[in-house]
Amino acid sequence: MKNAVGREIPEEILKLTGKDVYRGSHYFDGKEFKKDGPVTKPVINSNGSKLVDSIHDVLVKCGIKDGMRLGFHHHFRTGDKVLNMVMEEVHKMGIKNITLCASSLGKQNDPILPMIEDGTITNIESSGVRGSIGTAISEGKLQGLAIMRSHGGRVRAIETGEAHVDISFIGAPTSDEYGNLNANGGKANCGVLSYSAVDAQFADKVVAVTDTLVPFPNLPAQITQTYVDYVVVVDQIGDPSKIATGAAKPTTDQRKLLMAKYCTDFVVQTPYFKEGFSYQTGVGGASIASTLYLAEIMREKNIHMGFGVGGIAKPMCDLLDEGLIYKLVDTQDFDEPSIENIQRNPNHFYITGGEYANPFNKGAYVNKLDFVILAALEVDTHFNCNVVVGSDGVITGAQGGHPDTAAGAKCTIVIAPIMQGRMPTICSDVTTVTTPGEDVDVVVTDYGIAINPRRQDLIEATKDAKLPLKTIEELRDIAYSITGEPERVQFSDRVVGIIEARDGTIMDVVRQIKDFEFKDE
Amino acid sequence: MKNAVGREIPEEILKLTGKDVYRGSHYFDGKEFKKDGPVTKPVINSNGSKLVDSIHDVLVKCGIKDGMRLGFHHHFRTGDKVLNMVMEEVHKMGIKNITLCASSLGKQNDPILPMIEDGTITNIESSGVRGSIGTAISEGKLQGLAIMRSHGGRVRAIETGEAHVDISFIGAPTSDEYGNLNANGGKANCGVLSYSAVDAQFADKVVAVTDTLVPFPNLPAQITQTYVDYVVVVDQIGDPSKIATGAAKPTTDQRKLLMAKYCTDFVVQTPYFKEGFSYQTGVGGASIASTLYLAEIMREKNIHMGFGVGGIAKPMCDLLDEGLIYKLVDTQDFDEPSIENIQRNPNHFYITGGEYANPFNKGAYVNKLDFVILAALEVDTHFNCNVVVGSDGVITGAQGGHPDTAAGAKCTIVIAPIMQGRMPTICSDVTTVTTPGEDVDVVVTDYGIAINPRRQDLIEATKDAKLPLKTIEELRDIAYSITGEPERVQFSDRVVGIIEARDGTIMDVVRQIKDFEFKDE
Repeated sequence: MKNAVGREIPEEILKLTGKDVYRGSHYFDGKEFKKDGPVTKPVINSNGSKLVDSIHDVLVKCGIKDGMRLGFHHHFRTGDKVLNMVMEEVHKMGIKNITLCASSLGKQNDPILPMIEDGTITNIESSGVRGSIGTAISEGKLQGLAIMRSHGGRVRAIETGEAHVDISFIGAPTSDEYGNLNANGGKANCGVLSYSAVDAQFADKVVAVTDTLVPFPNLPAQITQTYVDYVVVVDQIGDPSKIATGAAKPTTDQRKLLMAKYCTDFVVQTPYFKEGFSYQTGVGGASIASTLYLAEIMREKNIHMGFGVGGIAKPMCDLLDEGLIYKLVDTQDFDEPSIENIQRNPNHFYITGGEYANPFNKGAYVNKLDFVILAALEVDTHFNCNVVVGSDGVITGAQGGHPDTAAGAKCTIVIAPIMQGRMPTICSDVTTVTTPGEDVDVVVTDYGIAINPRRQDLIEATKDAKLPLKTIEELRDIAYSITGEPERVQFSDRVVGIIEARDGTIMDVVRQIKDFEFKDE
Repeated sequence: MKNAVGREIPEEILKLTGKDVYRGSHYFDGKEFKKDGPVTKPVINSNGSKLVDSIHDVLVKCGIKDGMRLGFHHHFRTGDKVLNMVMEEVHKMGIKNITLCASSLGKQNDPILPMIEDGTITNIESSGVRGSIGTAISEGKLQGLAIMRSHGGRVRAIETGEAHVDISFIGAPTSDEYGNLNANGGKANCGVLSYSAVDAQFADKVVAVTDTLVPFPNLPAQITQTYVDYVVVVDQIGDPSKIATGAAKPTTDQRKLLMAKYCTDFVVQTPYFKEGFSYQTGVGGASIASTLYLAEIMREKNIHMGFGVGGIAKPMCDLLDEGLIYKLVDTQDFDEPSIENIQRNPNHFYITGGEYANPFNKGAYVNKLDFVILAALEVDTHFNCNVVVGSDGVITGAQGGHPDTAAGAKCTIVIAPIMQGRMPTICSDVTTVTTPGEDVDVVVTDYGIAINPRRQDLIEATKDAKLPLKTIEELRDIAYSITGEPERVQFSDRVVGIIEARDGTIMDVVRQIKDFEFKDE
């Protein structure tokens, strides 16, 4: 059955998953549903401690068994030690058929590869997968399906009960013996625990894993004792040097600087650029450069950002400190300065992943965004974006908040060079759709800016601004004139993964790659 | 059927309510249940405002209809204007058979009396009722039942789905257009919104009612946008002069000072009085005086309170400011200094009613209490306490956190003079049991201290301390020797109310009073 972005979703996948095809970004707006609730074990005694000696013991206490869904967060990024540590013990115990429900996975999780191959892990739910696990999924090594969910989509899936988590393991930089958890302090400071909040509220069993036990009550707490069943103290939950890399140096890449300039020139021409506007941007070189350009104009015109959202990095913190931004709402910290800033600047606020991006609550922060500046692996002439599957057909990226912010923001701008390496980025049809074209308003490339024809208002607002405006087809043609029109990647029939829309429908499927290489090479 | 405190619970009430009899304070410890979830209407659009013009319009939008359960909080105490305002509109619309589910009710709600009489309101769920509504219930004017729940019990009832709230109205001192709510600031500053947190999370529809609209995002927020459907701006949500009375003056009543001294003398003899101990106390004269006595000893012995819990008043804030208390966790502010303190002192923390006292989560703060100092209308020789029904049989008080803290604390002390007016406080059998004797460790009176025989450890620990120790029977006998043994209040057969144990079972029933006066007078 064809979905609203024209992708054919196989009937057997619809049947297998019980899912519907994607029907448009606002299809579920206002459609009521009943939230799930966890099976909760009340603590009505004053014994006072939830400490358990080891991961093994806590797995036993939680009643670990075949077929369970286990939750994890990725706030320690490539420094994470919790997921591997827990899965190693699960593996040792001979448990099979686990569904990993992680906010994201990356190369730090390569050690679990053998557990995919031996059936310990048979299903993976994640924002995306970088590293060997992505390749393994694309090679068909996972017995079940990989479901790629956006950050908001994961919260929705858990809150609706579609992804009922049996046990969630929350790596916590600090915890007391009763399970008050914070992301600040300790040995693996990660700034925020946003993506774990939904696990705390909706998982049947919640295990805090910490390397820094502090006196009760550990306040302020980002996750509180009433949601935590057990606390396990281990040697190390994360490698600080990999949790937050040092602040990115401003780019000197002329192509990126050009795109950043185009982006800012566009932003300031829109009616949304005014006192109190809201804004989210990524941590790529072009995104950061465009923020710096934008700041110059904000100073010049005495325009302040009402609030900045999202994964936060140093440039946004600097603007907050300067007073050019009034408030930051933070779901993830990408560098040391942002982790330091949230502990120090009282206008820098922790929010949960649900508050950030869940489409099925009563209004997430993404709904209040004026601008979001995003990147993409591919953008096609329907303005569909692909941020998960490489143009070689292998899973290599993550949805993150891409579809969430794109759907929410009044002006969604994707910055992408027209080609990367020898491959065109602007193309006729993306390999895999992750973000629907209806939610992408503007594409900024090194060869010009294309505005989605759905946004006649933006075309009108910017028409006299001497911007290098082009149609998306023109941009594609420029790309193809340099790279040649690429052969479409050839896949085998077997579906190995699903790109889930933020509302739980199917945006696209990912198929097994064929023979590990391209026919035509 | 007789329950664990020896009260006979009529079969028809068990059948009518589907409830079990009370079986002991820890009966449900570790017994798993599945949490309820609200019916939620997702907001997947960027329209950006949840403002609705009037209470009438928001009732229409929420689909108000006969038989619904409506939620309210009592943080504005006798200054509250929200409950009456909403119910007046419900009444005007001709809606019938409403269940009021309030965190508490008081004389400020006397205006709803006609709505009880005409069947607009047919059931009441509240911590208790002071004022004319209590009398009306005791006179049998409510068609259905009044269920008296502790603060923790209300959270449990809502979270289990036993009391599924259809629409909750949250009076919010400040709100933005998207429903980020705070208790600090605005015209009706009440310090905390603790008792509303469960409504926000579990009511199908959540309406913020504010008189102070502030720019988005209203951060920090005690209740966030993702839980709020609509925001209504009205002229006044509360009368500040009645929300928080000025700080109570230290008592000069010699009887209270004597009891305070006895209480402190007892506390310091227990093994729990040591560096880092935890403590909750009330706002009565004796409670406050005992805190002041205790502070003297803490200074002298250089012992600090790790954390103080509960409804907070000035004396505890002063000790926090002095550094004698490390942290305060706050569910309710009783006076202006405590409201001011939570905005100023970074070690004074907002907690939700669930975090405070819900017996059915993974561990509330009450579980971590060393001491709680409580009052009571009556205490009997089984150590059962009554805090709801006057010795004239009329509902006149509220459970509050009494049974919650009593069950949680390692040392529960009830301060009560042996008689009040001409009535004995220490008696053979309380009129109505609200807090079971198994959870009451010590009774401090103006004629001596009785330790519950269940607590041989406390008897042992204090035996050499030259405290005026007596048995509870001795105290009762002294009381009776002065007042005479009182005739038991005579009730009619009809059950008008239930004293619900914090776990949802029935602790006692309240019957209709007979002929408005006593036979023997």
